[in-house]
Amino acid sequence: MAIVELTIIPIGTGTPSLSQYVADIQQVLEQSPEPIHYQLTAMSTLIEGELPDLLRVIHRLHEVPFQHGAQRVSTSIKIDDRRDVKGSIQQKLQSVQAKMNR
Amino acid sequence: MAIVELTIIPIGTGTPSLSQYVADIQQVLEQSPEPIHYQLTAMSTLIEGELPDLLRVIHRLHEVPFQHGAQRVSTSIKIDDRRDVKGSIQQKLQSVQAKMNR
Amino acid sequence: MAIVELTIIPIGTGTPSLSQYVADIQQVLEQSPEPIHYQLTAMSTLIEGELPDLLRVIHRLHEVPFQHGAQRVSTSIKIDDRRDVKGSIQQKLQSVQAKMNR
Amino acid sequence: MAIVELTIIPIGTGTPSLSQYVADIQQVLEQSPEPIHYQLTAMSTLIEGELPDLLRVIHRLHEVPFQHGAQRVSTSIKIDDRRDVKGSIQQKLQSVQAKMNR
Repeated sequence: MAIVELTIIPIGTGTPSLSQYVADIQQVLEQSPEPIHYQLTAMSTLIEGELPDLLRVIHRLHEVPFQHGAQRVSTSIKIDDRRDVKGSIQQKLQSVQAKMNR
Repeated sequence: MAIVELTIIPIGTGTPSLSQYVADIQQVLEQSPEPIHYQLTAMSTLIEGELPDLLRVIHRLHEVPFQHGAQRVSTSIKIDDRRDVKGSIQQKLQSVQAKMNR
Repeated sequence: MAIVELTIIPIGTGTPSLSQYVADIQQVLEQSPEPIHYQLTAMSTLIEGELPDLLRVIHRLHEVPFQHGAQRVSTSIKIDDRRDVKGSIQQKLQSVQAKMNR
Repeated sequence: MAIVELTIIPIGTGTPSLSQYVADIQQVLEQSPEPIHYQLTAMSTLIEGELPDLLRVIHRLHEVPFQHGAQRVSTSIKIDDRRDVKGSIQQKLQSVQAKMNR
């Protein structure tokens, strides 16, 4: 299982407000047929699931700003893919917190 | 004010567990003299504050894995710097949620 | 057409040398059936082509370190996708140089 | 010595053309008092030098779009910092090419 950190920025749209795009992206995530979990942060969207599913979701999300009139989109993706243990968004946070409480 | 998304990866340390490094990084953040806020996500650390403060904090955090024996470190940083309105980690999340509830 | 900037880092492999992985990745790119162009930089691999092709290539490249024994891989991807003009790696560089010579 | 990969995107400027910004950024790099080398790619600017110098240069470059009227700037930075061997932009490329010719 992999976790993806995703930031999608429409370029040159004439408005500095990105929050509408982020809201549209959340809607696509909620209606996603793939078995994924997602979480919103102030800078990115986190998605966890199997890599082929995640790549399909990324492709769909990247198209959202174009569907709303953007002509250019810059998308940043970071994939953390671990095949030895099953790492989830929740488990990763707990793992750090356990070490901090020692 | 700016928000920074930061991921620090020690390379070639012989262990796939990064959570100890992340815990060390949290400790540096907690003891930071700069007036910053931070938040942990499953993929990154978010820090908000004035840009010169943030750059000093980034430099200090980047040194942490070297202090623990790493010989090579890959650090990814994304800066979202907005000079028109005062954007905070919390305000950005609320702005998206407000648009989703319409 | 889109340009992708790609960095693939195997985590915890016990060696700080990443250049063998990069060489393997180049080989996969050379034998790629998709109509893509690529270019190596000191920090990333640049690939240009149609987005669905690029996503297939990214998936294949991300698997390379796992095929060589890595248990965890961190892959960073930046997609610059422009639908108004046809931007290529070469054209983008020329566009900047033209403005610098003014 | 470290190598930095840097992408600076002004958000909401009303124009999809980023090449003027990139040209301005090149000018700042050329007049930089720090002992740095830089190289332009189609997606990023690569800068090599000592880390404290690089952080000063990054800060100066990040301010460029604001000086030209941008109200919001998204800057992505990747630092590859190696303390065991002296890695340069040129040496990293040669290291990969040597492995490919075997």
